[in-house]
Amino acid sequence: MLRIGVDAMGGDYAPEAAVKGAVMAAREIGSESRIVLFGDKERIEAILAGEGVGSEGFDIVPTTEVITMSDHPAQTFIKKPDSSIAVGFGWLKAGKIDGFASAGSTGAMLVGSMYTVKPIEGVIRPAISSVIPLVGGGSAIVLDVGLNVDCKPEVLCQYGIIGSIYAQGVLGLESPRVALLNIGEEKEKGNQLTKAAYEMMSECGMFNFVGNIEAKYLFTGQIADVVVCDGFIGNTVLKEAEGFYEAASKAGLCNEFIRRMNYEYVGGTPVLGIDSTVIIGHGCSTPLAIKNMILQTERTVKADVGNKLKAIFK
Amino acid sequence: MLRIGVDAMGGDYAPEAAVKGAVMAAREIGSESRIVLFGDKERIEAILAGEGVGSEGFDIVPTTEVITMSDHPAQTFIKKPDSSIAVGFGWLKAGKIDGFASAGSTGAMLVGSMYTVKPIEGVIRPAISSVIPLVGGGSAIVLDVGLNVDCKPEVLCQYGIIGSIYAQGVLGLESPRVALLNIGEEKEKGNQLTKAAYEMMSECGMFNFVGNIEAKYLFTGQIADVVVCDGFIGNTVLKEAEGFYEAASKAGLCNEFIRRMNYEYVGGTPVLGIDSTVIIGHGCSTPLAIKNMILQTERTVKADVGNKLKAIFK
Repeated sequence: MLRIGVDAMGGDYAPEAAVKGAVMAAREIGSESRIVLFGDKERIEAILAGEGVGSEGFDIVPTTEVITMSDHPAQTFIKKPDSSIAVGFGWLKAGKIDGFASAGSTGAMLVGSMYTVKPIEGVIRPAISSVIPLVGGGSAIVLDVGLNVDCKPEVLCQYGIIGSIYAQGVLGLESPRVALLNIGEEKEKGNQLTKAAYEMMSECGMFNFVGNIEAKYLFTGQIADVVVCDGFIGNTVLKEAEGFYEAASKAGLCNEFIRRMNYEYVGGTPVLGIDSTVIIGHGCSTPLAIKNMILQTERTVKADVGNKLKAIFK
Repeated sequence: MLRIGVDAMGGDYAPEAAVKGAVMAAREIGSESRIVLFGDKERIEAILAGEGVGSEGFDIVPTTEVITMSDHPAQTFIKKPDSSIAVGFGWLKAGKIDGFASAGSTGAMLVGSMYTVKPIEGVIRPAISSVIPLVGGGSAIVLDVGLNVDCKPEVLCQYGIIGSIYAQGVLGLESPRVALLNIGEEKEKGNQLTKAAYEMMSECGMFNFVGNIEAKYLFTGQIADVVVCDGFIGNTVLKEAEGFYEAASKAGLCNEFIRRMNYEYVGGTPVLGIDSTVIIGHGCSTPLAIKNMILQTERTVKADVGNKLKAIFK
């Protein structure tokens, strides 16, 4: 039995959106998986009742506190020990759940990932990743997308390993093509960071390095399944894509690719390189977004990235 | 009389596309401006004749050599002194033309900009810039887009000054809003470079600094007229936009904003912070792209960025 922990109090529209999303996810999740909700038990049960769903389909772990945007992430685990996020991470650390997802405070989720769950030994810097849609269907993975904004080349090289393992699990690819996001195709192109990272990645031998990828080809799938970059660049390319999605939506332009760029279908952002499965959802998550975040958490748990990385870095 | 120098031999489809583009530009260019073509005189005259245009509308400076992609940019001015680009830069340096544009070797154009024309004293690092379309109409300016891929914060701060002067001239804005491309709106967001640059830009007082801009808002015009970033980031956001443009085009999605993202309407990339006007066009320029490159060169000459920067940095 896989136990998928979900913060029922996380996100701008919680607990309503979170619980409704959990109800939607429960209909699609594997029979060997069970959703564990962390939050205000009474409110959760009332929302479930309103949805016409009994609470027997879920485990509910009652918590009394909620982390808000005004709480300082680094202090929340001490100041609000009975918050849904703090309790959720406690359960995750103790192995009582197999993954934990929240659309709540990104800062608190990262603090929990780094200080409660902790990075895998040998991983220099964990990353957060995003699954992006490809124009012709299918998906690619970008990492880092914002956790590590000043990267060293050896960190980018490790992201090649981490991204490759993750892509094997969630995209089902045997030998994912890993590329370095750069401003030219040729190996001598780039800034100091990407030039040095290119050298290391081409000599690493632990993943299928296919060279540089220019941002023009990010969404075409022609070059790479996994795109490695520092968190500043990764965050920027995702936000630019979000801008184009919104411009297209407002203008009434739509096709399957554009539809799939909607964050509600993306799910959330896994924290990779840590000793468990943690997924951070979008703050303004709708029930649909929460549903996809939960299903992604299940997929990521099954991908077993943490244990595979431990085997590599041991 | 403004004399706009054009490399007739530059670009993948030269001299045909370049000369045809010059013919198109001549119909729209100001009566006080005159196009000066550098290249193979016989071929230029033959193309003009084919277009049913007499050569009296243009000045032709005959040159015998052509810089190709296989020439090393740093050596071309010595090895091919009678190439259209080398002769063009000679005329520019001597003040016999007021601006020079080419869709040929970017490397050679940059070498000419830095070593024949030279940076303005006080400018730490020149930049290349791009005019981007906004969703609701109008344009914004991004710099640097690829010349300086490892920037120091003081260089980004100067780009605020340079971009502001350029936007005043070409966008006709009195006090352009200058923003720093970053991964969050708050001043404490970013990597080491953007945090330090934010400090300097907010204290500079030589332009209308409006704070950070996230890539999501690059094309909305809500926040900034001038977007400052290092050349790696700038080049990446432009290439990603190119990717979206191509995806939309292939899918048959179109509106005015998408149409304006077509590089043919952008013209070219001015080199800013040097002591004259130099515009680098797209290698695969069509006649339409060449036309817009020439008209942009005229606008940039009129904006008189070089002299205005000299007055500031003297």
